[in-house]
Amino acid sequence: MSLSSEGTRPTLKRVCVIGLGLMGGSLALALRRAGVAEHIVGCGREALLRRAKEMGAIDSGLVDAAEAVAECDYVFLCTPVETSIGLMALIAPRLCPDALVSDVGSTKNAFATAAREIFGKAANERVLPGHPLAGRELSGLEHASADLYAGCIWVLTPLDGEAGDELIASHRTLRAALEAIGARVIFINPEEHDRILAHTSHLPQMLSTALALTLEEVFGGDSPALKVHAGGLKSMLRLAGSDPAMWEQVAASNRANIAEALECMEGELRKLRESLGSAEFRKKFEQAREFAKFVKR
Amino acid sequence: MSLSSEGTRPTLKRVCVIGLGLMGGSLALALRRAGVAEHIVGCGREALLRRAKEMGAIDSGLVDAAEAVAECDYVFLCTPVETSIGLMALIAPRLCPDALVSDVGSTKNAFATAAREIFGKAANERVLPGHPLAGRELSGLEHASADLYAGCIWVLTPLDGEAGDELIASHRTLRAALEAIGARVIFINPEEHDRILAHTSHLPQMLSTALALTLEEVFGGDSPALKVHAGGLKSMLRLAGSDPAMWEQVAASNRANIAEALECMEGELRKLRESLGSAEFRKKFEQAREFAKFVKR
Repeated sequence: MSLSSEGTRPTLKRVCVIGLGLMGGSLALALRRAGVAEHIVGCGREALLRRAKEMGAIDSGLVDAAEAVAECDYVFLCTPVETSIGLMALIAPRLCPDALVSDVGSTKNAFATAAREIFGKAANERVLPGHPLAGRELSGLEHASADLYAGCIWVLTPLDGEAGDELIASHRTLRAALEAIGARVIFINPEEHDRILAHTSHLPQMLSTALALTLEEVFGGDSPALKVHAGGLKSMLRLAGSDPAMWEQVAASNRANIAEALECMEGELRKLRESLGSAEFRKKFEQAREFAKFVKR
Repeated sequence: MSLSSEGTRPTLKRVCVIGLGLMGGSLALALRRAGVAEHIVGCGREALLRRAKEMGAIDSGLVDAAEAVAECDYVFLCTPVETSIGLMALIAPRLCPDALVSDVGSTKNAFATAAREIFGKAANERVLPGHPLAGRELSGLEHASADLYAGCIWVLTPLDGEAGDELIASHRTLRAALEAIGARVIFINPEEHDRILAHTSHLPQMLSTALALTLEEVFGGDSPALKVHAGGLKSMLRLAGSDPAMWEQVAASNRANIAEALECMEGELRKLRESLGSAEFRKKFEQAREFAKFVKR
């Protein structure tokens, strides 16, 4: 396995990218462009493998995941959370002894727990879960881009906690490779990651979806009244266009945290409703405006 | 008063724009550029009048609203809803007998009701309330632009109902002038306008504000955790930056409709929360995605 050292380009010898959708396809393209992977093996359906080769994203391709990981030193699972957990169990017996497995799933605790079950005491050395915070309203290889991760935060969630300074060699190389494709890597432990993201990512998604359901309930699906709005409505409904299959798995794997975030939000909406027409209402708007300024910075 | 006829540019002889913020300033600039107003009188604080003259938005300016409307055939109240209602009462005795008053407030029912009280049977001829659906995260004359209303929907809410084909002359001229500055004019009655906007505009605003309050409640105002998100959070918090003073008046003047929209939304959030991890959840996401596609079109 290659080591990374300060100022030297990290080299991943043989990388396997399992799942060639938006995330996996973009990762392969970005690793290729940055020149940090010597050989990229893709894994997915025949048609996707063909297309990924045409795009120059992968060097070779295999439909079978267990075969695809043979002789690879880095394996990226780029499928929805629960699919990746199943694949991790499937490929585990076929991995090289020093291969490192990572993923790009939206939640980390279920994946981390599965990794501990599958790899036991070696789990921290064999698996370093990850989550690139890149936009996902689009999906599919046809939208993949070598630029998807440029400037995005890429969370790594080491199984033994928040590490960072004293990373083992393969973890350091992974971090360096992700930085080479433009990501800003940060370390958070898996539990904390899921609690934070339930509020900063999953809650906004649920709001957008519930707003769509509310408006359909009130007006029906194709009322001309729905065209009577300023731009704000469209921006609040943008996330509602996200992939249901992916969000089903996110919700299943982070249920308690999302439920807590939703309950808190329901309470704030109720309080805002009860403050309509009172002095409290304006104070809430002023407080929210200050807060939004901070997040925007 | 000038008449508009098919193919002829409408001419407003002497227009008064009361309130020189984003909305009023942009209206004056747009009327000027379209060449449909012979003379524009601005009304606002001294400093604003000076600045508006420098920008070429107005020809003359007066601080006193009752004086400013003298000899004007069209008067636009461009202040928040409740302020505009107060000003309408103030200027009523000084209006020319054939002057038409309009406004740009975000709610229409309270304004329409006040107009009926002030002008009695003549209300429909003297007042044609309006609401341009243009973005409002920014405010102030410094952001005013002759382009603000280009392509935007401008709702007119005749006091006698949804009219349209059989408009009286001054209403036709107003419509033509608004079309000349690029607005798409539609007619809705004031009550229906407020019910629709409570859902398509005020509800999205409340959601964004309540999301900010929820996140501040959970993380505090400046937690590094708030930087861990994909782009979705920022788009959902954009509206939270809106002007509290304006929204205080919107909420006060459309309280029952907004409360109803919020209650409905709270119910959808609760149902979505209860569906986490069930088959129902995915169905809801698919339904919301279809709906969002329609609104986007």
